[in-house]
Amino acid sequence: MAQARVEFDRLRGFIARAFLAVGMRERDAEAIARLMAEADLQGSDGHGAIRLAPYLKRIKAGGVNLHPEIRIVRERAAMALIHGDNGMGHVVMKRAAELAIAKARTAGVAWVGAQWSNHAGPASLYARMAMEEGMVGLYFAVGNANHLPPWGGLDMLLSTNPIAVAVPAGDEPPIVLDMATTVAAYGKVKAKAAKGEAMPEGWMIDREGKPLTDPKRAAEGFLLPIGGYKGYGLAMIVGLLAGTLNGAAMGSDVIDFNADVATPTNTGQAIMAIDPAAFGEPEEFRASVDKLVRELRASERMPGVDRIWMPGEQSHERRIAYARDGIPIADAVWAALDGVAAELGLPRLERMT
Amino acid sequence: MAQARVEFDRLRGFIARAFLAVGMRERDAEAIARLMAEADLQGSDGHGAIRLAPYLKRIKAGGVNLHPEIRIVRERAAMALIHGDNGMGHVVMKRAAELAIAKARTAGVAWVGAQWSNHAGPASLYARMAMEEGMVGLYFAVGNANHLPPWGGLDMLLSTNPIAVAVPAGDEPPIVLDMATTVAAYGKVKAKAAKGEAMPEGWMIDREGKPLTDPKRAAEGFLLPIGGYKGYGLAMIVGLLAGTLNGAAMGSDVIDFNADVATPTNTGQAIMAIDPAAFGEPEEFRASVDKLVRELRASERMPGVDRIWMPGEQSHERRIAYARDGIPIADAVWAALDGVAAELGLPRLERMT
Repeated sequence: MAQARVEFDRLRGFIARAFLAVGMRERDAEAIARLMAEADLQGSDGHGAIRLAPYLKRIKAGGVNLHPEIRIVRERAAMALIHGDNGMGHVVMKRAAELAIAKARTAGVAWVGAQWSNHAGPASLYARMAMEEGMVGLYFAVGNANHLPPWGGLDMLLSTNPIAVAVPAGDEPPIVLDMATTVAAYGKVKAKAAKGEAMPEGWMIDREGKPLTDPKRAAEGFLLPIGGYKGYGLAMIVGLLAGTLNGAAMGSDVIDFNADVATPTNTGQAIMAIDPAAFGEPEEFRASVDKLVRELRASERMPGVDRIWMPGEQSHERRIAYARDGIPIADAVWAALDGVAAELGLPRLERMT
Repeated sequence: MAQARVEFDRLRGFIARAFLAVGMRERDAEAIARLMAEADLQGSDGHGAIRLAPYLKRIKAGGVNLHPEIRIVRERAAMALIHGDNGMGHVVMKRAAELAIAKARTAGVAWVGAQWSNHAGPASLYARMAMEEGMVGLYFAVGNANHLPPWGGLDMLLSTNPIAVAVPAGDEPPIVLDMATTVAAYGKVKAKAAKGEAMPEGWMIDREGKPLTDPKRAAEGFLLPIGGYKGYGLAMIVGLLAGTLNGAAMGSDVIDFNADVATPTNTGQAIMAIDPAAFGEPEEFRASVDKLVRELRASERMPGVDRIWMPGEQSHERRIAYARDGIPIADAVWAALDGVAAELGLPRLERMT
């Protein structure tokens, strides 16, 4: 099914106008719109335009502070803790990433955590900010709804707490890993349900521990962590680093932002920047990354495998293709965007012809 | 089958005497012996006394530098790169951890990478060094033999590159995650082969991508990464951070230290320390960790599950039990230790009676 497409800049402009229309500061609206459009540009379509209507709903309900005073509450040479003042997560984590990059430039590495932040879109966007400055970026976040019990348990006390790492290469595309610590992110379950397809075994289990493959029964079961108890451990560690360490929500304190649009989430996130220039010649590092990529790509392949991909390589190719050909937007998302336009009295977003 | 046991201090003393007998400096011999005995104490028995004979073989073959000059080659406020001078990895990474802790005390966080290091035993020991100082410790290492192809590939270009993270708690045991990025570590495959047992599906696949469950056929297949392509991505990222960034071996440069005892491995490892005192009151952080642990532990359980464990909790209980009752040592390891004693003209290590 062909989806109508949109140019990156038009999408960005539309999202920015929507946020301006509800009273957001221009600088913030522009920054969030760019990051949301970038999510769609790289194919992270669960985190782009699809989120505009829910974000606006949350803003309308008073669940997000439109005019936050984001401030540094603790600071050392290689770290900071910032208070997001319940602002949109994109604005909080953009500030955090910029601060981490600046500190890493002198200290070699730096870590900036955030408290009282909110959902910030795809983890990779913030790790990429360091990468675009020639640094390695690492991002950790507490997810905004708990879908994972402790290993062996039934109470959903953990989220899919994602990790993203971006590593600059030389001539090769950057390495960008962006992963939930569960086998499937919850959005993938919802997508299967929407398409009426069964889930593969290994995504979810029911309360007896048996495989759950019907996505319509998702509420009766749990996501499975990657590598069993290992992924449970990873989800917990990411939550400790991004949530607990920052004085942000973790465990039963996590607000399900789909179910509750009004309560501040106190979302915790953290970004780390590592400057390869502190370790040696950055050009040598980039050349070594290229060498490794080429070696892995040239590996003999299993039967039926056409190509060996690096983490983030498919997103990289989508960025190029969608920048050239436009970003495909699902019909349901177009309808939601048209609804936003109507509600806010804005011109509808134009489809590419 | 009951295994003969040994007191921690006796095991430590025996290992130290063995290293002294081959000409190692006393301070280094003591440090390595303590870490190796600690590995057995916490049940990481693939990394303790079992490694003494292989380490001595490597030393004899000239594959390890007995008198390394470990030195800082790059340094900033929050990082250092140390050159291990091909010394034993334990000595190199103990130095790295101490440096990371000292720097984190002022900078808030710190990262120390190592090049020209060697196998250093269980990842958790180094993350724990930070934890014992009240800090969060993170450890990343390039494994010393490649058992993992890129996702979809057949050439073994990646190792099981482990991650360890240790987080201090208050009254609860610390959270200590120590995991290979593969479903099973290679040592577990060897253990199944030794016992004549089949492996569960999901540990390994053959060159056609089909499940491989006969551990005697392990050489015909590959370890599976956790979460499929996600674990492949994690193994690659850990290798980039611990190996490539440090100018250490990665990909096809990795020396298989079981097959080749003479060539310097240029093993890369990295340790990070995060000081919770930089983020707020350390007591509050510890109390929040306790609260989370208790909440997860109290979760309703699946049928047949007796207890919900935290990462590292079983090792913690073994540390206490083995310190009290002695450390069980497998018969084959006792035989190897007796062989070491005979070869070096040392008194045999005494079994507990």
